[in-house]
Amino acid sequence: MRDAVALLPDLIAPLAPGAAEDSARFGAKAARLARLAGLGAPVKRGFVIAAELVAEVAEDPAAARPRLAAALDAALERLDAGALLALRGSPADPAWGGPPALLNLGAAPQALAPRIGERAARDVQRRLVQAHAVALGADAEVFDAALHDALDAAGEDSERGLDAAALDRLLATALTLHEEETGEGFPSGPRAQLLGAAEAMARAWNAPSARILRAARGGPETGGLALILQEMALGLGPGRSGAGRVAFRSERTGAPGLVGRFLWQAQGDEARAGLRTPRLVGYAERQAAGAPAASLEEEAPELADRLRALGAVAERALADAVTLEFTLEDGVLHVLGAEPLRRSARAAVRIAVDLAKAGALTREAAVLRVDPGSLAELLHPTLDPAAPRDRLATGLPASPGAAAGPIVFNAEAADAAAARGQPAVLVRIETSPEDIRGMHSAAAVLTTRGGMTSHAAVVARGLGTPCVVGASALKLDLVARTLTAPDGRVFREGDLVTVDGGAGEALAGAVPTVQPEFSGALAELMVWSDSHRRMAVRANADTAQDARVALGFEADGIGLCRTEHMFFEKGRITAMRRMILAERAEDRRAALERLLPMQRGDFIGLYRVMQGRPVTIRLLDPPLHEFLPHGEEEIAELASDTGLAVPEIRRRIADLQEFNPMLGKRGCRLGIVVPEIYEMQARAVFEALAASWTDGPLVRPEIMIPLVSARREATLIRGRIDAVAEAVAAETGRRFDYRVGVMVETPRAALRAGDIAEDCDFLSFGTNDLTQMTYGLSRDDAGRFMRDYVAAGVFPEDPFHTLDLDGVGELLTLATERARARRPGMSLGLCGEHGGDPASVDFCEAAGFDYVSCSPFRVPVARLAAAQAALRRRGA
Amino acid sequence: MRDAVALLPDLIAPLAPGAAEDSARFGAKAARLARLAGLGAPVKRGFVIAAELVAEVAEDPAAARPRLAAALDAALERLDAGALLALRGSPADPAWGGPPALLNLGAAPQALAPRIGERAARDVQRRLVQAHAVALGADAEVFDAALHDALDAAGEDSERGLDAAALDRLLATALTLHEEETGEGFPSGPRAQLLGAAEAMARAWNAPSARILRAARGGPETGGLALILQEMALGLGPGRSGAGRVAFRSERTGAPGLVGRFLWQAQGDEARAGLRTPRLVGYAERQAAGAPAASLEEEAPELADRLRALGAVAERALADAVTLEFTLEDGVLHVLGAEPLRRSARAAVRIAVDLAKAGALTREAAVLRVDPGSLAELLHPTLDPAAPRDRLATGLPASPGAAAGPIVFNAEAADAAAARGQPAVLVRIETSPEDIRGMHSAAAVLTTRGGMTSHAAVVARGLGTPCVVGASALKLDLVARTLTAPDGRVFREGDLVTVDGGAGEALAGAVPTVQPEFSGALAELMVWSDSHRRMAVRANADTAQDARVALGFEADGIGLCRTEHMFFEKGRITAMRRMILAERAEDRRAALERLLPMQRGDFIGLYRVMQGRPVTIRLLDPPLHEFLPHGEEEIAELASDTGLAVPEIRRRIADLQEFNPMLGKRGCRLGIVVPEIYEMQARAVFEALAASWTDGPLVRPEIMIPLVSARREATLIRGRIDAVAEAVAAETGRRFDYRVGVMVETPRAALRAGDIAEDCDFLSFGTNDLTQMTYGLSRDDAGRFMRDYVAAGVFPEDPFHTLDLDGVGELLTLATERARARRPGMSLGLCGEHGGDPASVDFCEAAGFDYVSCSPFRVPVARLAAAQAALRRRGA
Repeated sequence: MRDAVALLPDLIAPLAPGAAEDSARFGAKAARLARLAGLGAPVKRGFVIAAELVAEVAEDPAAARPRLAAALDAALERLDAGALLALRGSPADPAWGGPPALLNLGAAPQALAPRIGERAARDVQRRLVQAHAVALGADAEVFDAALHDALDAAGEDSERGLDAAALDRLLATALTLHEEETGEGFPSGPRAQLLGAAEAMARAWNAPSARILRAARGGPETGGLALILQEMALGLGPGRSGAGRVAFRSERTGAPGLVGRFLWQAQGDEARAGLRTPRLVGYAERQAAGAPAASLEEEAPELADRLRALGAVAERALADAVTLEFTLEDGVLHVLGAEPLRRSARAAVRIAVDLAKAGALTREAAVLRVDPGSLAELLHPTLDPAAPRDRLATGLPASPGAAAGPIVFNAEAADAAAARGQPAVLVRIETSPEDIRGMHSAAAVLTTRGGMTSHAAVVARGLGTPCVVGASALKLDLVARTLTAPDGRVFREGDLVTVDGGAGEALAGAVPTVQPEFSGALAELMVWSDSHRRMAVRANADTAQDARVALGFEADGIGLCRTEHMFFEKGRITAMRRMILAERAEDRRAALERLLPMQRGDFIGLYRVMQGRPVTIRLLDPPLHEFLPHGEEEIAELASDTGLAVPEIRRRIADLQEFNPMLGKRGCRLGIVVPEIYEMQARAVFEALAASWTDGPLVRPEIMIPLVSARREATLIRGRIDAVAEAVAAETGRRFDYRVGVMVETPRAALRAGDIAEDCDFLSFGTNDLTQMTYGLSRDDAGRFMRDYVAAGVFPEDPFHTLDLDGVGELLTLATERARARRPGMSLGLCGEHGGDPASVDFCEAAGFDYVSCSPFRVPVARLAAAQAALRRRGA
Repeated sequence: MRDAVALLPDLIAPLAPGAAEDSARFGAKAARLARLAGLGAPVKRGFVIAAELVAEVAEDPAAARPRLAAALDAALERLDAGALLALRGSPADPAWGGPPALLNLGAAPQALAPRIGERAARDVQRRLVQAHAVALGADAEVFDAALHDALDAAGEDSERGLDAAALDRLLATALTLHEEETGEGFPSGPRAQLLGAAEAMARAWNAPSARILRAARGGPETGGLALILQEMALGLGPGRSGAGRVAFRSERTGAPGLVGRFLWQAQGDEARAGLRTPRLVGYAERQAAGAPAASLEEEAPELADRLRALGAVAERALADAVTLEFTLEDGVLHVLGAEPLRRSARAAVRIAVDLAKAGALTREAAVLRVDPGSLAELLHPTLDPAAPRDRLATGLPASPGAAAGPIVFNAEAADAAAARGQPAVLVRIETSPEDIRGMHSAAAVLTTRGGMTSHAAVVARGLGTPCVVGASALKLDLVARTLTAPDGRVFREGDLVTVDGGAGEALAGAVPTVQPEFSGALAELMVWSDSHRRMAVRANADTAQDARVALGFEADGIGLCRTEHMFFEKGRITAMRRMILAERAEDRRAALERLLPMQRGDFIGLYRVMQGRPVTIRLLDPPLHEFLPHGEEEIAELASDTGLAVPEIRRRIADLQEFNPMLGKRGCRLGIVVPEIYEMQARAVFEALAASWTDGPLVRPEIMIPLVSARREATLIRGRIDAVAEAVAAETGRRFDYRVGVMVETPRAALRAGDIAEDCDFLSFGTNDLTQMTYGLSRDDAGRFMRDYVAAGVFPEDPFHTLDLDGVGELLTLATERARARRPGMSLGLCGEHGGDPASVDFCEAAGFDYVSCSPFRVPVARLAAAQAALRRRGA
């Protein structure tokens, strides 16, 4: 065959190492087969028609026909004239789809019968007629109906039971149907069959629906499909004949082992899609499944060994775990295809690590091989896939993980349930900041309103608590304390439900869960990642407990400690409310003095966990009214606590209401107008540092000023922080190493970053708010239409999930250039939801940021994404 | 004197045309005097010490003393050795302040007595000692106390009653006080007196408080003060002697006429600040004031003629209306100074126009001379300045103009009052869109909450209704229907109050007002302006009535018609609410079909007024919940109108509530998700156009899509509008000339303007929302702290009032560059409050915008500002 190659036209290549390995021209399937053939795998002779010729045929079949015919003729000349042929699509990327294979081309019963018997020869012929008609556009169902009629007439349940006469009648019917359905008679001879089938496959590839589907998966509008023409291994006929598929690792875990199905006396995909029950390939799989029929490994252990050996060769040669498609022809094994194994996130990690350790991949390639986003599911418990699911309603998968527990309808009950040792599922219409302590205690959170960036979703992700939001089909009656499913079932407090945050489902009862592990292959992959990572990965953590979780995921520091969350805790909220309601400066100061030791204690706890690492502390950010009570009871309680009259409290609450709290008196605006709050917080930061002096390596506090829009805001507040630092230094005799920075979360702060950089030590981009303001879109309100918007392609993605590179990204780039032009090497980071999104992390690497900061549970995702981004930038 | 000039040092110039006319070196006062002296006005001999020498003296008195002494010596050499001398400050800009004049230097009683008598000579000497001490830093009060002691002892009430002995004792006391207060004895001889006084003046100019004050007025930290040393005209002594000031036009109207005060036997500013009652200068002014004493004009008509002639010369020479400071010395008139006349906005216009018509100014210079912002007060009624004011409370001057009327507490009552022919003052805590029809009917609006950009403020400015917002000292009890002033007075519905929107005051009772006129000088100035203007000036007008007002102010078109305001009208709001509450598409369509003829009628009315001009129609913008009822009554009414149950309506209202309505489901987001609304509006636009076909010149509708943040939003909606246009064209047989554009009001739309420009015909910058989003600051909520912020210099100005050039301005510039790079010459405009702000209009001219659009009542302001901007850019 080698010398024949030289004579082949340019548009066709033999299925052998060399030419056909170019997957852009000849498709991935052909490239892999050619590669395996070169390594001695049993691959039947064949040729590949290049994608550019197929594209020509699709464009103008009549004009391209002479070239297509010449290519096919050149191939036919070089193939065994007596062999049956198969025509298969070989797209450049398997994800783009492709036409079904057309088998048995050139079959003629009289020629086949001596090899495989009369009955089988007729059956093969019938299959060819049907498949040919379908390739030309006929409906497969009319042929299937004819087969079922014949089976019914014969009282059989498989075509193997039909006799020759029945098969002859069936074949005649098929030939008639071919003519009726396609308008042409079934052509005789492989050349005519091939030409028509190849043209039909090219046409189908170019049909509008196929183009749209392909484009949606990132494929080209035209081109991209090659065709493989190959001698067939016949799985029908004498001796050990059959067909199957086998993988060499578990799809779920990536652990080695034969996994697959096989059918004696079968062709193509019959083991997956045929009428007969297939055998399992491996003995261990059969044992685990308790299948009655012997596995292929038991019946023919030497074949299993041969498959295992082929699997090892393929895995090494293709540097990936594969599923082999194989046929046994009278006891001889032939490989028809080698596809990458479908795999779970866990398996992907295991495979990448195994391949790297075996030397099939570099460690860099292994790091690049795993989708960082997929790690999230490995870090949370998931529902046992084997357990039955009684689904009540679906919502948005707001925070991954699964948990079961008794229903509670408010935060206090969630606390109480946790205290009793049975964490509950907190069910709310929406959550508010006052629910945070309850969300801490809850096993899971379920809301009937809100989007992926609603309060419940954001907080739950931060806490790592499974959460489903916007399950609007559930009716929540807070007065009757009932939750009603769309099917009418009513759940009361204490009834068991399960929340699957990964799937976005609420389920009845307590479904068993599977625990995650952060060890083994995953731990190893993270170590490799870290050796290539340039950016630091910090965590958003508000409490010592959060910080411990973050350290468990090996965060490099805290990038965002939201100090306000500390004020919602019991015992503190009252002092906070006193402070807010104070009309005189001395009352306010008195209330703040009660808060100071609490806040100082918080920071001491945080510093103790984070020893020696940077901790970014954001000064109070939310509008003050978020801290005020809403319910009657709470207002009455506050009245008795503070001695203020209820109507007076109500008036103050009404006074503090804002039209657009997001754009209101919050962040540094509070810090400017009520300086005592930030002064108390700064004092707590430094006093805590002084108290930590002999406690181990000191953290470096980075105090962050939120919601800056003008340089002077930062200048004024920085001045006050420095003054507090000096005062506490004088009182304690310590010299503090600290930084003061600005959270860039308004478009104006991004535009004026050059100016702002003059007065601060670092900038951290708060991309949640920056996205809101750049789009003019509240993340709390966007849930109402974001799904419609993304579905209609108005936004390509939810910009709160994946950083909008064109708009928000440009602001980040502008700010980076301007800040660094003024202060070269200035420290820049990103905090907010995007810090855990791989595409956004990639952007941060390109922009030269020093760190990203994300929810503790996303830290491994960000570490891997940051390593990949660094490797890609280095051209690895 | 002419040949002496050549010998003078560089740092001193004679008070004569030539050198001293350089006001940067010799100050404005010296320059004007030198100019007048050159035209033959009676100006006494004098010299000016240049500002750079004064600055040297301020910096290091000892080092500079030889040069200062040399300059003074050179001057003294050339002045009459027997004359008394005056030392006056001459700052480059009078607004920077300056030291008080020091008169009578060199006075010695023995030399003076023969000329002015013993008593006057002693008096002059005493004044000199006191003034010299004060110039050196002494407290004037101790000297005044000594004078009053002497008067008390003598039983006199003026120093003219003291005898020589008493005057001698007083002089001795003054000399002692000089030594006690300054630490030095009173120097003898003009040279020593001058040197000390000049050094003291330089020091005072450099004192920290003076520097800060000067810097706040745009002056330099150091320098900028020259000193005038001049022979004195003595207003004391024999014959007709005295001193005074006179202007030649009314400060209030600019109309010609002698206006001033004069005192016989007086010096300097005694006519303004002395113990005796001055005479009026002009006869007409005396008549009008009913003053008992004869005017100078009556006592010495030839002097009045001489003053009038001098005034005419000065006005022409200085190209400005002036106030002359003058002294009569034994019947001879001397001019001591010529300051620009202080003037009202009305007078400024009259003066500029008069001067241009007289040829003293070019018309361009006249156009540049008037502050556009000051015009606003000319276009509204104002309170009669003579009427007494009983002030109840102050708030923010949200919309200029003044009006009185009976109090009403809700919009319906305002309607009813207007129907009875007595427009009311609508008093609310805040207003909401439902109040708009009441605000239309009201004479004025008063709120107790909200800032300069609150709903009440914005709407009132648009309507031209006087409005005061945030008058928080007033307590409004809506249940008792009372308004309580801080002094405890209680006002009920029907009680008369007055709102002064220009001053931001609420007054008790009905204060008489003065009506404005848009004619005479102002009309003339606007014609001149328009001949230099490049940008069009359009008006924001929602109704035919608004449009008529806009045309009255000669707007070039409508730049923003907010279609939602039309839906709040009675009879429509119910159809709107039906549409919003519709759960099925056909119900929504039915409701929209009821709205269509109403909206079409609105547009026909608008087109009829605006014939031939462009009209920009913004599609529905606010979130739908703004249209829903809030009160119990209204909900009940809606329930009976729609057949929906009250709890169901309540639920739907709650469902539509948003956390941040500004950033919620509004603008084109509604248009995308509920396409029927915009389709109805587009249909109304085109059907109205078809109906206007034979009605006169057609307007060109420009349909504007609000709140775009991504190109695809504009693409989708534009496609639907074009389809509606085509459908209506087919139905009516007309071909429509229209444009579709995008309102750029999110930072992202500005950044992506290049992209967005591909799909639209024009961009209009909605700088209200763009400012909100760029700062992350809601204008409705900013009122709570904006005053504090601006007062503390955190923001230099309220960015909702004056365009923030550094942040929002950069976005406008970026958007302009990007849009025009993609579509050269693309039409760009600005709508929103900034369209009527002169500084913002100047920015728009520089950015090359095609038009600005503002409230109808700001149109003249914008026209003048646009003309000035164009002239400045042309270097006029």
